Amino acid sequence: MDWLDSVKWDRDGLVPVIAQEVGSHDVLMFAFMNRDALAETARRGEAVYWSRSRGRLWHKGEESGHIQKVHEVRMDCDNDVVLLKVVQLGHDAADPSIACHTGRHSCFYQRLDGGRWTAVEPVLKDPERIYK
Amino acid sequence: MDWLDSVKWDRDGLVPVIAQEVGSHDVLMFAFMNRDALAETARRGEAVYWSRSRGRLWHKGEESGHIQKVHEVRMDCDNDVVLLKVVQLGHDAADPSIACHTGRHSCFYQRLDGGRWTAVEPVLKDPERIYK
Repeated sequence: MDWLDSVKWDRDGLVPVIAQEVGSHDVLMFAFMNRDALAETARRGEAVYWSRSRGRLWHKGEESGHIQKVHEVRMDCDNDVVLLKVVQLGHDAADPSIACHTGRHSCFYQRLDGGRWTAVEPVLKDPERIYK
Repeated sequence: MDWLDSVKWDRDGLVPVIAQEVGSHDVLMFAFMNRDALAETARRGEAVYWSRSRGRLWHKGEESGHIQKVHEVRMDCDNDVVLLKVVQLGHDAADPSIACHTGRHSCFYQRLDGGRWTAVEPVLKDPERIYK
């Protein structure tokens, strides 16, 4: 049996995916994959998601240069969530690790403090310079 | 404005939640919360999820004793995913950190190796002894 058949795809044919950085162990982002995206991720060794807003495969970094090299693919006990362990590349060697479209390291930069959400991580690169 | 109003709940009134262990930084599990579950999580300082299979609030550990103490609540750039940083408790002080109903530390114990899913983490406690 194909390993892709083991995944329990949801009613939209998608599976939620968590991307975690090798080394720092930071959770970088969360997205979805369909069957083609997961197959392509395994084949290329780079994260390919399904963009729900654009309705197409999204090779992470195709515009930003912020490619995710995949070190490990994990699946949970219910076969309905994928965890990718990735090396997050920057636009060039001098770039820090940036996964978020806001130019931050991780998408999870808002922290609940005393009943408010506060941005607690710096913008490492102006998004206007990422998507140019 | 209430911080709960900032969350973009999905069409079922839910938000996906990633639980990550403080210290090890391991991703332990993935689940969903509705508004009541997230409010209750913040109020108690312990993870309360929405069980889709049971159709009710699920105070993690209510049966297993494997409570998750919440150290931080984070939200992503799109306001539609929550990341909890937790201390994963065992049934008693002698128990190791077990988040998975299979008795493993993390739910993400299956690794893709050469086109097959392989269980790569040990069962730390027999589930029959967890749910008795």
